[in-house]
Amino acid sequence: MTLIADPSRLSPADACPVTGRISLVGAGPGAVDLLTLRAVQRLTEADVVFYDRLVDPEVLALAGPQAELRYVGKDVGANAWPQARISTEITAAALMGKRVVRLKSGDPSIFGRAAEEIEAARQCDIPIEIVPGVTAACAAAASLCRPLTERGRARQVVFASATGQEVNDPCLPARLVPGSSYALYMAVHRLEALVQELLTEGLAPDTTVTVVAAASSQNEQMVECALSSLERDVRRNGLTNPAIIMFTVPLHLRGAATKARVTSAFA
Amino acid sequence: MTLIADPSRLSPADACPVTGRISLVGAGPGAVDLLTLRAVQRLTEADVVFYDRLVDPEVLALAGPQAELRYVGKDVGANAWPQARISTEITAAALMGKRVVRLKSGDPSIFGRAAEEIEAARQCDIPIEIVPGVTAACAAAASLCRPLTERGRARQVVFASATGQEVNDPCLPARLVPGSSYALYMAVHRLEALVQELLTEGLAPDTTVTVVAAASSQNEQMVECALSSLERDVRRNGLTNPAIIMFTVPLHLRGAATKARVTSAFA
Repeated sequence: MTLIADPSRLSPADACPVTGRISLVGAGPGAVDLLTLRAVQRLTEADVVFYDRLVDPEVLALAGPQAELRYVGKDVGANAWPQARISTEITAAALMGKRVVRLKSGDPSIFGRAAEEIEAARQCDIPIEIVPGVTAACAAAASLCRPLTERGRARQVVFASATGQEVNDPCLPARLVPGSSYALYMAVHRLEALVQELLTEGLAPDTTVTVVAAASSQNEQMVECALSSLERDVRRNGLTNPAIIMFTVPLHLRGAATKARVTSAFA
Repeated sequence: MTLIADPSRLSPADACPVTGRISLVGAGPGAVDLLTLRAVQRLTEADVVFYDRLVDPEVLALAGPQAELRYVGKDVGANAWPQARISTEITAAALMGKRVVRLKSGDPSIFGRAAEEIEAARQCDIPIEIVPGVTAACAAAASLCRPLTERGRARQVVFASATGQEVNDPCLPARLVPGSSYALYMAVHRLEALVQELLTEGLAPDTTVTVVAAASSQNEQMVECALSSLERDVRRNGLTNPAIIMFTVPLHLRGAATKARVTSAFA
């Protein structure tokens, strides 16, 4: 048994004043007033801020006048700024003694590729911390005024990514759990495959699906439709990533899901 | 297809200046500097603030001098303030024209019982909004400096409650999805049953489990141990709710999970 009595053992951000430090800061879902006070504080004190294309200019404006702003515009699927290069740039700045803020949209711990940057920092003995933020699914639920969990209906909530790397993963049929709500991140570009997967898993074609693009930002857009018309309606209304696709798997899917699993086990 | 072009249709907080309004405000996980700027703004403007025992006094201190602070101390399992009474009190204050803030620890959309309060407000045509917050699981991950998702290891994250109402739910064996990380809220009081359920579902006895109590607050405590010794180590170190129990279901559980599902289908 390991008892971790002192959190600084894991994130020793205050332990090494002689060197730089890295803060992986959750920039929240979009709206600048959904940043936390701690995120604002880190931005104010930063020597250098690394940001990508999902971060709002208003958020960047919170950085102090001393801060150098560096764009590491990793687009989904693009390789202009591969993760390894971002990790290298960030650690190099910290090794020069700088207070580094790495802004990540939403919460750094949820689909933020934080593990690579943490590992890079630790290899160089650089103190690193995570400043948590409001993740996009929570902002989408807030915009809809519709909670992600609800007694007797959605007893758990699943945040999943659907970026396409794992389309053919054999684990997919086990993914839908009855009585769960789902929030799929970054899935708008592969709706056709997604709809087919969900239908195969037993979700009814008339299941209500809600898509919230750019949740909380000025460009926020929402579409609500049946699963069967999801692709058409999202395209027609021009919704693009970043977007959250939300639905609830009903409790009565239980039989269908069990049947599907047994079938696949003997296929 | 319903296109929701205007979010105020769903949360018309700014649409009815003549009456009161209700803001379900995420108070964050504990630390006062993990509130969002918007949450602080709502507290500053509130006429009345409803709070429960999980809200830090420092957070309450952000309310303006005009604000009436009202304790609705719903303990887990206690009925002194049942949800229906809280909903009634909140709507009654809004109907008197007050700007009502209902503080909810973490994010209101995740295990916040928000649905009941939203329904009560809508029945009275009271404008209601959700101000999203940092949920406890994200704060726990940040304190550990360990992301909830990680490529090739934890492709999705599940936030589940384990308050005990659904111990015998037949859906439980389908709950564990390989390659997922889990954050269980409010489960410390029923560890014995939880450990048995997880072992039955195929999780190895030596699976690493991390418990973070009061994440981000001054009373934060962490324990990391094997699943098999979870109850003993949590008790020995005196961790209590609010706490998050975290573990990752390995990808190689796939075979075990499939076997368990087939077995239960023919039982």
